[in-house]
Amino acid sequence: MEPVVALVVLVALLEYIAFGMLVGRARGRYGVSAPAVTGHEIFERYHRVHQNTLELLVVFVPAIWLFGAYVDANWAAALGLVYVAGRILYLRGYVAGPAKREFGFGLSVLPIIALVGGALWGVARKLI
Amino acid sequence: MEPVVALVVLVALLEYIAFGMLVGRARGRYGVSAPAVTGHEIFERYHRVHQNTLELLVVFVPAIWLFGAYVDANWAAALGLVYVAGRILYLRGYVAGPAKREFGFGLSVLPIIALVGGALWGVARKLI
Amino acid sequence: MEPVVALVVLVALLEYIAFGMLVGRARGRYGVSAPAVTGHEIFERYHRVHQNTLELLVVFVPAIWLFGAYVDANWAAALGLVYVAGRILYLRGYVAGPAKREFGFGLSVLPIIALVGGALWGVARKLI
Repeated sequence: MEPVVALVVLVALLEYIAFGMLVGRARGRYGVSAPAVTGHEIFERYHRVHQNTLELLVVFVPAIWLFGAYVDANWAAALGLVYVAGRILYLRGYVAGPAKREFGFGLSVLPIIALVGGALWGVARKLI
Repeated sequence: MEPVVALVVLVALLEYIAFGMLVGRARGRYGVSAPAVTGHEIFERYHRVHQNTLELLVVFVPAIWLFGAYVDANWAAALGLVYVAGRILYLRGYVAGPAKREFGFGLSVLPIIALVGGALWGVARKLI
Repeated sequence: MEPVVALVVLVALLEYIAFGMLVGRARGRYGVSAPAVTGHEIFERYHRVHQNTLELLVVFVPAIWLFGAYVDANWAAALGLVYVAGRILYLRGYVAGPAKREFGFGLSVLPIIALVGGALWGVARKLI
């Protein structure tokens, strides 16, 4: 993986780790003991932010890698940074209220779709 | 990653994104508001299909990559396509009724086990 | 990916697959039918162990890969084996009682933080 792409991947991993720590903190703050993952609305929001970021991260990492390898490393890194910023807005929006999660959701999903679509185009160009 | 393996990985990522969109549609259709992930049986089935696909995808991507690199790229791609088809049957079966999810589950898990086992053999051959 | 790093990644994937099989066994043993993921305390512990391992695995795989590529493959493999051992202790602790999961949790999270931090340093060194 190109260094500039690897850097953005590592930043996205750190962001996800931070979201996981916020879930742990919310467990204590709102009194939700393991193994439960429900019981307090605010805890559930932090938990859903973490889970949703997990759901995106499994696509983000291979997509940015393949886009970087088959299309362009700098564009891959730029799209990756939009994803990272979109996740921060998603966290802030969701914790304020589930209805406010839409903008950050879109801002983190759109670069992933661009990475997958671009990588598909780059790979197809090699194959045919 | 070899182009033919990358192509199948991207198809598997798109399938998983489509499953996620079906969860979003089921939220609206069956009236399950975020952050809840329970409350309507059919919504829960779509949600479990998406979650179970997430659970497999984190193994599938590194396994097909390493099998392609250490054993054979074309066999990796062929096994990957069986996985993608198995997931479609899993979705259709699960939504029809949880008991009907078994065949599609097996058809998507077996190629993953073949990819992990084959990659292990390929890596061990290099190391010893 | 270096063979020694690939070997540890595959061992971690097999461990995760085994944890998933324990969840399936617990479904039958404690009478929790799909799509439910709650209903029996012991089932929920196995399920949370599997989910938590999934949450870590999505960081572990790219982190050990990048550490192996940008820092050192043998150190990457050694840290990876600590993670694998930590997860076994986490499983045993959590099933015995959620409060006993802390040591295994730490032993599997610390090597991941070392892998991410080390990879970040290795990548930054290349970029500047």
